Amino acid sequence: MKDRYLKFVNSPFGASVARSIGLPRPEVLRRYRADQPEFGGMAAIGAGPSPALFETLIDILGALGMTGVAHESARGWLPLANSRGAMSGRFEPQAPDASASERVQALIFDGTGIAESTQLRSLYGFFHDGIRSVAKSGRIIVLGRPPGSCADPHAATAQHALEGMTRSLGKEARSGISSNLLQVAPGADIEATLRFFLSPRSAYVSGQAVRIDAAPAAPPAAKPADWRRPLEGRRALVTGAARGIGASIAGVLASQGAHVIGLDVPPAKDALDQTMLAIEDASPSGGAHAALVADIAAPGASAEIAAALAAMGGIDIVVHNAGITKDRTIAKMTREAWDSVIDINLSAQERIDDALLAQGVLREGGRIIGVSSISGIAGNLGQTNYATSKAGVIGRVRSMAPVLRTRGITINAVAPGFIETQMTARMPLGLREAGRRMNSMSQGGQPVDVGETVAWLASPGCTGITGNVVRVCGQSLIGA
Amino acid sequence: MKDRYLKFVNSPFGASVARSIGLPRPEVLRRYRADQPEFGGMAAIGAGPSPALFETLIDILGALGMTGVAHESARGWLPLANSRGAMSGRFEPQAPDASASERVQALIFDGTGIAESTQLRSLYGFFHDGIRSVAKSGRIIVLGRPPGSCADPHAATAQHALEGMTRSLGKEARSGISSNLLQVAPGADIEATLRFFLSPRSAYVSGQAVRIDAAPAAPPAAKPADWRRPLEGRRALVTGAARGIGASIAGVLASQGAHVIGLDVPPAKDALDQTMLAIEDASPSGGAHAALVADIAAPGASAEIAAALAAMGGIDIVVHNAGITKDRTIAKMTREAWDSVIDINLSAQERIDDALLAQGVLREGGRIIGVSSISGIAGNLGQTNYATSKAGVIGRVRSMAPVLRTRGITINAVAPGFIETQMTARMPLGLREAGRRMNSMSQGGQPVDVGETVAWLASPGCTGITGNVVRVCGQSLIGA
Repeated sequence: MKDRYLKFVNSPFGASVARSIGLPRPEVLRRYRADQPEFGGMAAIGAGPSPALFETLIDILGALGMTGVAHESARGWLPLANSRGAMSGRFEPQAPDASASERVQALIFDGTGIAESTQLRSLYGFFHDGIRSVAKSGRIIVLGRPPGSCADPHAATAQHALEGMTRSLGKEARSGISSNLLQVAPGADIEATLRFFLSPRSAYVSGQAVRIDAAPAAPPAAKPADWRRPLEGRRALVTGAARGIGASIAGVLASQGAHVIGLDVPPAKDALDQTMLAIEDASPSGGAHAALVADIAAPGASAEIAAALAAMGGIDIVVHNAGITKDRTIAKMTREAWDSVIDINLSAQERIDDALLAQGVLREGGRIIGVSSISGIAGNLGQTNYATSKAGVIGRVRSMAPVLRTRGITINAVAPGFIETQMTARMPLGLREAGRRMNSMSQGGQPVDVGETVAWLASPGCTGITGNVVRVCGQSLIGA
Repeated sequence: MKDRYLKFVNSPFGASVARSIGLPRPEVLRRYRADQPEFGGMAAIGAGPSPALFETLIDILGALGMTGVAHESARGWLPLANSRGAMSGRFEPQAPDASASERVQALIFDGTGIAESTQLRSLYGFFHDGIRSVAKSGRIIVLGRPPGSCADPHAATAQHALEGMTRSLGKEARSGISSNLLQVAPGADIEATLRFFLSPRSAYVSGQAVRIDAAPAAPPAAKPADWRRPLEGRRALVTGAARGIGASIAGVLASQGAHVIGLDVPPAKDALDQTMLAIEDASPSGGAHAALVADIAAPGASAEIAAALAAMGGIDIVVHNAGITKDRTIAKMTREAWDSVIDINLSAQERIDDALLAQGVLREGGRIIGVSSISGIAGNLGQTNYATSKAGVIGRVRSMAPVLRTRGITINAVAPGFIETQMTARMPLGLREAGRRMNSMSQGGQPVDVGETVAWLASPGCTGITGNVVRVCGQSLIGA
């Protein structure tokens, strides 16, 4: 589906029309392309008292080829960067008419040391000075602690307050700039996550608070040899892979090195075969992908899927993307529409996971990623069945995370907002336009935005991310 | 501030205009009035397997003078009601054109026994049959378990799924009907909470999930002699009480029997005196209220407030309502605007609580209620300072709840959405209309809606409610 308005206002003529009558001007978001550099330029660094992550930041920015420039709030950055041989400098706020090359790609604020509400004042100076200096499709990243990890309620209070700041900045920034909060527990490994949030891969993820725990006792995964292919050698099951978001998830996982088993129902067999062929053609390794045809609603399907995957030697990543909608208000809904949506979107996920886990088919260090929805968070008119099933996916992630922790398996969900698919293309025009514009990016997301987010959660470096629900919604207004 | 549109479309002429051109028709919400019966009529009862709360429901509905009529899903209700001598009957779904007297005042679904996602099918039959039978300003109440209290992840998953159902029903119901989920831990006392959610007092609370824990070891409070005055004999501090929402909170607490100490800053002394006088005039007991003038931002103010309250013999209820806005985008905001909003809206709450708690001025069984905001949940453009402070209030509630539990003190927050006050009356027309209509009630709330919600959380029966954030927003679309 094409967003014609987005194209129009980004043409020379459309831009001048939009300017003169005050229409919103959504930015064409920068997304990941293999033929363009993923990282580069400057990141402005700010900090509250006692920042804990400077050394980590210096090393990661160095590895990305980015230059950290220190705001006056980031005392201690420059000598530390010098001592580690990193490129560095002072942050100079830019005038509103500064050229693109003078702008910073990211504002990164280390608020991990903020221990009481009075120390929130350090946020003001950095973002007041810095927000106008961010490039289009730039990044705002606030680093804090999970409030639950703070022994002192005053610290937990101030850490939770960072959510309000991060979300407000996302609504103020515009120009395709995202704003996210990473709640980093002491000892947590943030590299994979910081890379994702600095990358154009996270284009449509904004307004989120992601909790990163310290890795459990199991040895942390080694760093990937190639950060562009962190899933090298991993085997991934993607349900509902024939089309749309599922096909995109399968494609991104494969492009990052995974061997993908795409699953879909018998009537979608041809589409699934084509999708998997296209993925094979695009994969440099080639030939390691497979199509699996099964109706996950059928009795015995979960056992058959588990057996097929066991025969391949087990699996590392499960993405529960298969889902259906049968929208009607509850008064007009049929029992069949209720039952089938609950069964396919929720109960089938449980049956498959139970089968994979009981037989050890999902290996240690595994990753389960459910696809929820904003409707599962906020409810939706005409979607009692769908919203109930998608809220269940969130409940599943929260309740299974502690159970799976001992096995080194993480479980998380993505919750897409308005994504441009065949499904949204069939919506009435008014609803579709409202869905597209009611978010901080003033546009719908692309299936690849969900795929990239799933791939990040699936990566070996995300050992400390479990029990999280990450919205892929451009910071949609809608929530609960 | 008057909502002229609400008045217009509820006039005979306006109603016909709205009907013919398809404008939204917000319902004039039924609110509590001392001269009208608070409860009455029928409540339709539905249930999943093994409902745990039938006996409790039968007794509470009996005490309220309501008749429970059993849907076919509520097997076992009729014999149990008969054995307890309660009025009862079978639920007959009404045709869409049924008269007001044939409609039910509430749909109550006992889902406490739902232990796996396949059992969610019991929701369908009850709400499919029942939703058109609910009277205007009626109630939908789903009873479940806190997912965190479920040992089995399958049960936690299904219990969390109830959130999606409850919120979707709130968006479908219209006609001023609210929909809320009560997550009842085994052994929790629900009477005060069920009364609130069945009452017109909860008119503007919808789409919420409220967790009710079992009371801690301390003996539970005795039932109030008069349920209209559950705060009899309790002393309450309300900050920012001179005007608006604070004055309304003070008024509702006083009307329910509390002795109110209204606090405000020196420039608001006259307004505060008038407000407290009006409350005294309206109180049958009279004379027990007091005005306290203090600038909570001043050094030493918290110690002075604690000393004044200690001299009165201590206090039972603290409502942190005082708050200010100084809206500007972060790039244009002054440091003073940042600092003063954080200090008054957040740090001052902490200082006052710390002083009251350190000296035991807030007595055992006490209640702390913070006023947060939807901006604290979702962030807001132009409100980085305000949203940060109000997110901090949420962090405070979550982190202090476990600390205070051992002292029998609860801490909760209300998060108002769009409330008709002098503040919102000054908003630009477009923003104001959007704020009013973007919720399931298609209208703004009244200050009394916040007051009633605070009074419920302050009541002795709410021993098991702590660490909750309850939005008073008519189920605003906006969230995170």
